[in-house]
Amino acid sequence: MMSENGALPLRGKVLTVDTMNANVKKVDYAVRGPIVQRAVQIEKELKEGVKKPFEEVIKANIGDAHAMGQRPITFFRQVMALCTYPQLLDDNKFPEDAKNRARRILQSCGGNSIGAYTTSQGIDCVRHDVANYIQRRDGGIPSDPDNIYLTTGASDGIVTILKLLTAGEGRTRTGVMISIPQYPLYSASIAELGAVQINYYLNEEKCWSLDISELQRSLQAAREHCDPRVLCIINPGNPTGQVQSRQCIEDVIRFAVKENLFLMADEVYQDNVYAEGCEFHSFKKVLFEMGPEYSSKVELASFHSTSKCYMGECGFRGGYMEVINMDPEVKAQLTKLVSVRLCPPAPGQALMDLVVNSPQPGEPSYQTFIKERTDVLSALAEKAKLTEEILNTVPGISCNPVQGAMYSFPRITLPERAINEAKAKGQAPDMFYCMKLLEETGICLVPGSGFGQREGTYHFRMTILPPTDKLKIMLNKLKEFHQKFTQQYS
Amino acid sequence: MMSENGALPLRGKVLTVDTMNANVKKVDYAVRGPIVQRAVQIEKELKEGVKKPFEEVIKANIGDAHAMGQRPITFFRQVMALCTYPQLLDDNKFPEDAKNRARRILQSCGGNSIGAYTTSQGIDCVRHDVANYIQRRDGGIPSDPDNIYLTTGASDGIVTILKLLTAGEGRTRTGVMISIPQYPLYSASIAELGAVQINYYLNEEKCWSLDISELQRSLQAAREHCDPRVLCIINPGNPTGQVQSRQCIEDVIRFAVKENLFLMADEVYQDNVYAEGCEFHSFKKVLFEMGPEYSSKVELASFHSTSKCYMGECGFRGGYMEVINMDPEVKAQLTKLVSVRLCPPAPGQALMDLVVNSPQPGEPSYQTFIKERTDVLSALAEKAKLTEEILNTVPGISCNPVQGAMYSFPRITLPERAINEAKAKGQAPDMFYCMKLLEETGICLVPGSGFGQREGTYHFRMTILPPTDKLKIMLNKLKEFHQKFTQQYS
Ligand SMILES: Cc1ncc(COP(=O)(O)O)c(C=O)c1O
Ligand SMILES: Cc1ncc(COP(=O)(O)O)c(C=O)c1O
Repeated sequence: MMSENGALPLRGKVLTVDTMNANVKKVDYAVRGPIVQRAVQIEKELKEGVKKPFEEVIKANIGDAHAMGQRPITFFRQVMALCTYPQLLDDNKFPEDAKNRARRILQSCGGNSIGAYTTSQGIDCVRHDVANYIQRRDGGIPSDPDNIYLTTGASDGIVTILKLLTAGEGRTRTGVMISIPQYPLYSASIAELGAVQINYYLNEEKCWSLDISELQRSLQAAREHCDPRVLCIINPGNPTGQVQSRQCIEDVIRFAVKENLFLMADEVYQDNVYAEGCEFHSFKKVLFEMGPEYSSKVELASFHSTSKCYMGECGFRGGYMEVINMDPEVKAQLTKLVSVRLCPPAPGQALMDLVVNSPQPGEPSYQTFIKERTDVLSALAEKAKLTEEILNTVPGISCNPVQGAMYSFPRITLPERAINEAKAKGQAPDMFYCMKLLEETGICLVPGSGFGQREGTYHFRMTILPPTDKLKIMLNKLKEFHQKFTQQYS
Repeated sequence: MMSENGALPLRGKVLTVDTMNANVKKVDYAVRGPIVQRAVQIEKELKEGVKKPFEEVIKANIGDAHAMGQRPITFFRQVMALCTYPQLLDDNKFPEDAKNRARRILQSCGGNSIGAYTTSQGIDCVRHDVANYIQRRDGGIPSDPDNIYLTTGASDGIVTILKLLTAGEGRTRTGVMISIPQYPLYSASIAELGAVQINYYLNEEKCWSLDISELQRSLQAAREHCDPRVLCIINPGNPTGQVQSRQCIEDVIRFAVKENLFLMADEVYQDNVYAEGCEFHSFKKVLFEMGPEYSSKVELASFHSTSKCYMGECGFRGGYMEVINMDPEVKAQLTKLVSVRLCPPAPGQALMDLVVNSPQPGEPSYQTFIKERTDVLSALAEKAKLTEEILNTVPGISCNPVQGAMYSFPRITLPERAINEAKAKGQAPDMFYCMKLLEETGICLVPGSGFGQREGTYHFRMTILPPTDKLKIMLNKLKEFHQKFTQQYS
């Protein structure tokens, strides 16, 4: 109301940190946290001519292949250009197989335009292609297009399934089991939804493998205060780079059945397997190979994305999820829920289609496609090895083999004095370390504390994505820094 | 645990409608509800050769311009193709201004690729261009790129702001004021977040205008049971097609100040104004013209999208929001929150850039661009008029002028017997009507009950998007149907 003299009342803001959504406040997201903000600032300072002991910031903090110089797959971009500007279908610069793919995608878009909304679950023909891909990948185990939902990146699918699963209050509140270290999308979404985070620790001594006894310990403890209903697995692992054995996956599935848990399998790195003797096994495949007693029972959602593997098309935000044994009424609710936001981006859907329906032998683009894919994957394999080797030459750094995915997560020994100085500043010791590294060398990493780690241990996550020569320089700078840092604080 | 004979225990599913997120169950989304599902089914039946009294389904249920045959703007698609497949930058088929735009966008992408993740708030140069656009649009009132967030369609921005604002329990739970009829994204998101929906009714007798006295009534009533903190406005209106007067916007702003409400202005139809004497006024502009006493105080978020106006690029899911007077700490929380999902799709961001930075006089694409834009907008204006005129010739249908946006929302008189038959079936009477219309004519509309309406009144929403000749046929079929329906049930 107006006061006597007609002035407006003095009031505070409607929306303040005290009055806002309390769950949102609890969200933490290290991959784009303070260290990355500082890196962006430093880049600006460099541009403005501020003198630094380095020429450029190297962002090894995020799995963003193109940003690190990886080239897109030619065929994918040709088809995307054709879908975007169909006048190019008359241009003989484009190969016939690219044109055929584009025509097929456009035919299943409203008004033959990639600018139309799609059905909420995703374009029909793309969902069929995804199902065929899964079936081929899994040695013929059938996949039903009705179980496929296209998503805005895997992130979107993961949050949506967690949302469906979150219910109850107090001791009946949904508990979600996640590995530690974890990809922080999980902890952030759990916080946002007000679910309960349940940590199970990966075994660093055994190459970040998963022990069933640790799952059991963590579940037991959680049952005291919440209702554990979901078990999340990332395989190949982020940030830890391990690839799970078939045996381990079987054991996890048995555990899920025994303990009545919904399984979420994050398999966005399914093509990123480098270490000898390692192989990607999908949860779906292992589940069905365990026989109908399991495959008819276990509720599973698995996730894939256009962002990783050999394509690294993060900006398009393409992805899919497959839901297995989901209660039909819940599936109807899921379909309704995703319809509120209308649909995932159509270009991302189209790109997902190309990933699951890539050039075939005999098609004009086949050779180039295979060459480009192989080049990317073998360079990554080489860099995975290189990273492990160089890091392990540094006293005070110990790095597990990077079996898969795109990251190393080495353990670092920090001098007592550094730890104390960090704590005095209210900083996690590995944040203190990474911040100093950034200021002195321009290398941007994410501290282990952003992913979770055993109390008293310290790590950082570094992508293996920079080009080989740059990666070498970076690793050697890091080595030098670590030695200096250790001396300085000893 | 295994039972004695080694068989797995018999257990129900983890995730059922009884154990799932209760808020999700409450979500309702009519625009893609049962009527649309039936329409999709009918399309399949037609393809399979099932005989129907019509040849095709006409989907006038959703504002999806390209699906209704509208052509994309050539310049936009050229730039998008260039961004997608930069090899085309050497092709002299593409005009220089398109190439320049593409180069500029690519330069601000990581690794010069639209396949890189962008910053979470959106590509820097795009946010700058958005701010410049707003400043031009609003007669020079400044806009700060730091207040711009790019989004995955306007939907994403709207849900994000509602999420920030939702807090409290019981009587202190956040109440959100929305118009009735409304665009059901609002009611659905409010339900999902567990906020409290507060209805204020638009005045159908006065061309769906907004009365402050009705706002007051609705607010007062809501204060009994929740904490009203947000007022949502859609202008131009969906589903009701009204365009708010400058005076009305001023009054709403005064009301928001007086009652301490956060304003959300959904302005995705800002170019879709057809009626003589009507003009689009942004809330931002009116707010700032009211003087610093207001402009320094009112918290406002406004939303725009690539999906509507003359471009109709729904599939790209581009959008932005501008936040005004947001508490800096809350803004930091917002930035953190959006970073969890990494970023909006880069192609949608690029497209948003073109919308706010379209060809300028003197540039090679200017003439064609203006012609294409004008053609779309004047066809829409013509169809708005046509729709109103034809519908008002039908006894029992009364339609307000379609001043803007893309929809008519006529009131229909239903015979008592039809109402009773619907109720006996447990259907809303206008759902019963629309379902019959679909089965008999193939026309797919959304019943008024999906948007909300005054008790005892019935409506449907119909887009004005079909091409003029098809629209005429549709309107005449509708007329015929309505007369038959009325006779049948009288
Ligand atoms: C394990 C894991 N899951 C999901 C995602 C999300 O990927 P996107 O949303 O880009 O598909 C990432 C991204 O880095 C990831 O590492
Ligand atoms: C009023 C209104 N707001 C928001 C939207 C969402 O648009 P998008 O998410 O495609 O930008 C729509 C779509 O129809 C709408 O009508």
